[in-house]
Amino acid sequence: MSRVAVVGATGYAGAELVRILTGHPDVTLTAITSRQYAGEPFSTIYPALTGMTDLACEAHDIDRLKDRADVVFLSLPHQLPMTLVPELLQKGLRVIDLSADFRFTDVSRYEAVYQPHAAPALLDQAVYGLSEVYAERIGSARLVGNPGCYPTSVLLPLIPLIRHGLVSPVNLVADAKSGVSGAGRSLSLAAHFCEVSESFKPYKVAQHRHNPEMDEQLGLVAGYAVHITFVPHLVPMSRGMLATSYAQIMPSVGYRHIMECLNDCYGACPFVRLCGDDRLPDTRNVRGTNFIDIGFRLDDVGGTLILMSAIDNLVKGAAGQAVQNMNLMLGLDERAGLMPVPYPL
Amino acid sequence: MSRVAVVGATGYAGAELVRILTGHPDVTLTAITSRQYAGEPFSTIYPALTGMTDLACEAHDIDRLKDRADVVFLSLPHQLPMTLVPELLQKGLRVIDLSADFRFTDVSRYEAVYQPHAAPALLDQAVYGLSEVYAERIGSARLVGNPGCYPTSVLLPLIPLIRHGLVSPVNLVADAKSGVSGAGRSLSLAAHFCEVSESFKPYKVAQHRHNPEMDEQLGLVAGYAVHITFVPHLVPMSRGMLATSYAQIMPSVGYRHIMECLNDCYGACPFVRLCGDDRLPDTRNVRGTNFIDIGFRLDDVGGTLILMSAIDNLVKGAAGQAVQNMNLMLGLDERAGLMPVPYPL
Amino acid sequence: MSRVAVVGATGYAGAELVRILTGHPDVTLTAITSRQYAGEPFSTIYPALTGMTDLACEAHDIDRLKDRADVVFLSLPHQLPMTLVPELLQKGLRVIDLSADFRFTDVSRYEAVYQPHAAPALLDQAVYGLSEVYAERIGSARLVGNPGCYPTSVLLPLIPLIRHGLVSPVNLVADAKSGVSGAGRSLSLAAHFCEVSESFKPYKVAQHRHNPEMDEQLGLVAGYAVHITFVPHLVPMSRGMLATSYAQIMPSVGYRHIMECLNDCYGACPFVRLCGDDRLPDTRNVRGTNFIDIGFRLDDVGGTLILMSAIDNLVKGAAGQAVQNMNLMLGLDERAGLMPVPYPL
Amino acid sequence: MSRVAVVGATGYAGAELVRILTGHPDVTLTAITSRQYAGEPFSTIYPALTGMTDLACEAHDIDRLKDRADVVFLSLPHQLPMTLVPELLQKGLRVIDLSADFRFTDVSRYEAVYQPHAAPALLDQAVYGLSEVYAERIGSARLVGNPGCYPTSVLLPLIPLIRHGLVSPVNLVADAKSGVSGAGRSLSLAAHFCEVSESFKPYKVAQHRHNPEMDEQLGLVAGYAVHITFVPHLVPMSRGMLATSYAQIMPSVGYRHIMECLNDCYGACPFVRLCGDDRLPDTRNVRGTNFIDIGFRLDDVGGTLILMSAIDNLVKGAAGQAVQNMNLMLGLDERAGLMPVPYPL
Repeated sequence: MSRVAVVGATGYAGAELVRILTGHPDVTLTAITSRQYAGEPFSTIYPALTGMTDLACEAHDIDRLKDRADVVFLSLPHQLPMTLVPELLQKGLRVIDLSADFRFTDVSRYEAVYQPHAAPALLDQAVYGLSEVYAERIGSARLVGNPGCYPTSVLLPLIPLIRHGLVSPVNLVADAKSGVSGAGRSLSLAAHFCEVSESFKPYKVAQHRHNPEMDEQLGLVAGYAVHITFVPHLVPMSRGMLATSYAQIMPSVGYRHIMECLNDCYGACPFVRLCGDDRLPDTRNVRGTNFIDIGFRLDDVGGTLILMSAIDNLVKGAAGQAVQNMNLMLGLDERAGLMPVPYPL
Repeated sequence: MSRVAVVGATGYAGAELVRILTGHPDVTLTAITSRQYAGEPFSTIYPALTGMTDLACEAHDIDRLKDRADVVFLSLPHQLPMTLVPELLQKGLRVIDLSADFRFTDVSRYEAVYQPHAAPALLDQAVYGLSEVYAERIGSARLVGNPGCYPTSVLLPLIPLIRHGLVSPVNLVADAKSGVSGAGRSLSLAAHFCEVSESFKPYKVAQHRHNPEMDEQLGLVAGYAVHITFVPHLVPMSRGMLATSYAQIMPSVGYRHIMECLNDCYGACPFVRLCGDDRLPDTRNVRGTNFIDIGFRLDDVGGTLILMSAIDNLVKGAAGQAVQNMNLMLGLDERAGLMPVPYPL
Repeated sequence: MSRVAVVGATGYAGAELVRILTGHPDVTLTAITSRQYAGEPFSTIYPALTGMTDLACEAHDIDRLKDRADVVFLSLPHQLPMTLVPELLQKGLRVIDLSADFRFTDVSRYEAVYQPHAAPALLDQAVYGLSEVYAERIGSARLVGNPGCYPTSVLLPLIPLIRHGLVSPVNLVADAKSGVSGAGRSLSLAAHFCEVSESFKPYKVAQHRHNPEMDEQLGLVAGYAVHITFVPHLVPMSRGMLATSYAQIMPSVGYRHIMECLNDCYGACPFVRLCGDDRLPDTRNVRGTNFIDIGFRLDDVGGTLILMSAIDNLVKGAAGQAVQNMNLMLGLDERAGLMPVPYPL
Repeated sequence: MSRVAVVGATGYAGAELVRILTGHPDVTLTAITSRQYAGEPFSTIYPALTGMTDLACEAHDIDRLKDRADVVFLSLPHQLPMTLVPELLQKGLRVIDLSADFRFTDVSRYEAVYQPHAAPALLDQAVYGLSEVYAERIGSARLVGNPGCYPTSVLLPLIPLIRHGLVSPVNLVADAKSGVSGAGRSLSLAAHFCEVSESFKPYKVAQHRHNPEMDEQLGLVAGYAVHITFVPHLVPMSRGMLATSYAQIMPSVGYRHIMECLNDCYGACPFVRLCGDDRLPDTRNVRGTNFIDIGFRLDDVGGTLILMSAIDNLVKGAAGQAVQNMNLMLGLDERAGLMPVPYPL
């Protein structure tokens, strides 16, 4: 039974990690840390878990963790993980980092939108944790850079179609919508109830830091530079993310080719559910789950492919995919701990 | 491995039964029925469960069920179950009825607010399924009348205090608030999104049919006629119920006596969580769970006890308590199938 | 003082008409009709207006209206208005129809997505009621086809840019999001609270009937056939609509040209508010108002223009624009009755 | 035309004052202040008002206000107003204070739950601004202590019944529910979207500072000490407050006596709407308005009167009642500026 620790357990993604790992049949959650709540039982911060876990938060102290965990999840603001990861790896632990610090191959992209990187040499050995796309490499990784929520929802449907040349890599558009939990537990006017309720709005239009993350991944698949126009929006709900992406299909490509391509790539993937003619993705159907529901339609007049994908931003978009990656790294069933029966409503 | 069936599986309570029973480790869900959706896969009606169950809805046909189930859950509008239960019992099945048909001991109370009862003779052998209070009788029951959601939330904190004479049975008030799923999946203006959003309102004031159900139960405990003033309200959220009940404490009763009494009664009950000084019940903390969170405060000036209790109206208030009762009837661990780790938010 | 009547006053758009016209300083609301609620006071159906209006609903009887109104608003399901309008016009009344029946120039477009048209000869004299674009023609119209909510939000920002050749009419995309009130007051599972809450989803993808309406209008401006890829989504809120539209800019067009063009067209329009660099449209800011807030950003990498526009779907998207059109038809101040100070939150 | 100023204009109550006063026909809003936003146009903080007001926020500087205003609204945290009011009065201005500083007659009650009072001598001349109850005294007041939102909703229905001896002043209970805007614009976890959404919970049970405010007012009416048990709850919506109050009726008091008493007191009050048998108060019906909707039912079994009252906590519960009081003080029509037609939904 592997031992795991969560560093940064009281943010929303961290708390989801605690939830999933507490119920995981094949690993033991041995330690959780929090700067703000060191010393407090987890269940006083998240009373929903009263009676479900006795863990209390510790301070972030790598030395105290190293003998109690085989795998460490870092759920911290970017910039912190890159200072902690080298030591963790050196001590022989495996690391899954939920920040942006180890998502990029090209350090200049990272530095252009975040800040100077303190451990650029590690980027080579870090694996981008888009589970379905990089499952094999993740299986042997020591360090995984867990993808952003938006990139997860946009890339999974697009990558196979770009890779197999079914859509043009030019004029790509991703219009994405996220529930408020994506903004985390930190207080801000943008997440203040009365500012969000009965409000729908775009933000960081064509300026979101997940945009270069998507561009890099799409470029790696295409083999040349790709740019996607990306506009995120805020939805007055807690959880859920839906991306509607637009691409021009290549000549003579039809509905059937798209479906076959997605089926070939994802037919065997337990967390990808392809919607046929009879159903469209809806965030409710993936709420609290690690599923991504993917659907598409062709607008025949203009030859425009409309891809729709729904995830729970905190699960497949963060903590769930991180545990999926852990399962791959530890040789466990990919689904372990991630298959509670979803709520019908 | 016992076999179970759900009759009326596509309403919200029925769907929750399907969710819980699909994930239950010790029983097998063998059949689900629906008049409206006979022939359709459950997952086309509730796409969240796509890939999680292959069951399709059948018509309500007792004959076809009798050899495929040991326990039958009835999740139907009242008046229907009383026509089906006699046959089910005769065929040797155990029945857990989620309607009001078998909740009353005194048939005249039932008939005063529902309609003439077609099987009054069965009321004697039916056990009121308030799990924590009647666990022993439920264990040997063939027929359980599963409590209403409001009575569950109001009765659990009150019953021990009435029984042990800590509060007066006079001038009891229960001010209760429910999420919209309590109104079910049937269409109505009262559950139309634009009529509910940004609205909070009372309804059926002192006229709700759960009122005589509570009165009867409180009277059985007190040993004489008791009436509680009951006002339900509708909250603009999907799931959750919170009851705030007011009672006069008996002379020389203090905080400590209340806490001891509740602790004595419920300290060993896995689904009752008593909140101390540091926490108050909140529907979010029980969302999707079978927990009831109970807290209380004393208003010293007037000697008024304020009891607060939070449940998920579809789980502890319906499907969850029904499965808890099934566990008791089958001699399983009371918690079986009912302990997925709750979502922190 | 002109006299006005609302036919179909109890749907959401009709009720908004009653609200605005009740507070209008220059017209008198003399009659309101409803099939479902004939005989009932308006304030029993919408209790918010208790004490504000004494009007009761009448049956739809054109004969009874003709001597009591100079202008008639029709807020009915499409297909009904085309049977009523000829008689109303003949009796000398002016008509503003909120259905799709008189929005199209080309009857075949209408018939392709609605049904056979009973009064195609009237399409020639009907004016498309996009107030800011067709103000002059509306001023002298006898019959106005009031635009759909989606077309209003998408067309207002796009039309000037297409007209002046700043963006390409090829590969246009409109990704639009609407609050639930757009579905009206009729009951449906799609507007059932528990199905909408915590749900974000696309619907009628590339198949919505507002799509040909937009195509026709864009084509009229461009001078040749234009198609826009249109995907509507449902937002868990009551009121509000936001469209995010994507277009390729023409060579050497920059931010400044776009801003100048929109300013030239709309700078003098009281209901169009252009957002500069410091602000993005948000449905909250136009809630309950007749404003359209328009903002844009350029994605330099791909030369993609991102247009964002927010309206209240029931006001600028329906009843408000209809009253604005009435003001134009009657030679009143365009703003009359439409300028209550908006709520800050 | 009287000139008015709002000190503390950017909190939610202050912003509502700006909204109402901007649209008020009989006064001119000449100055608004804000510490946090001094120098910024109001419409950059509340973009909904873009184009509706040109006012920019000033620093709190009494000297600069004194020649530009006849009436000053203070919308500040308690403890600040008591240091500003003496100077304002001395300069001859009239003051309406929305904090608790001048609500109490008995300074010891105030000091028991707030802090030492810096201007206790002024309490004698301050009038409690419960408009319908103290209209006459408000008319001649120089200083009005505007009531809290909870006391407004609880006291208006109760006071006439206590005064006329129809209900017992013993064992009073007020179970109140408020939208989140009551917590103001200041950031807190309690108003963070993801903590509020799908949550219903009590808070400050029997410990809220509005409790002694109610006790004092009820005592003044009764002529002896009265205590009401008060439990506030938080509703997942922005605006709106509903109080459900419970009282024992006096012998031989019936439905008719209650209705007559309320009618006698409030029949001529433009903002009080009594609901008969056919309607119950609902926060939606008063949203954005200065109305209080009052309804009641008798629970015959126990002789318990159930009073229900709905207000918009920011309007009748704060800014609206403050303007109503200003109207009374200036001898204007009580309704001036407060009667925009309400939204039907």
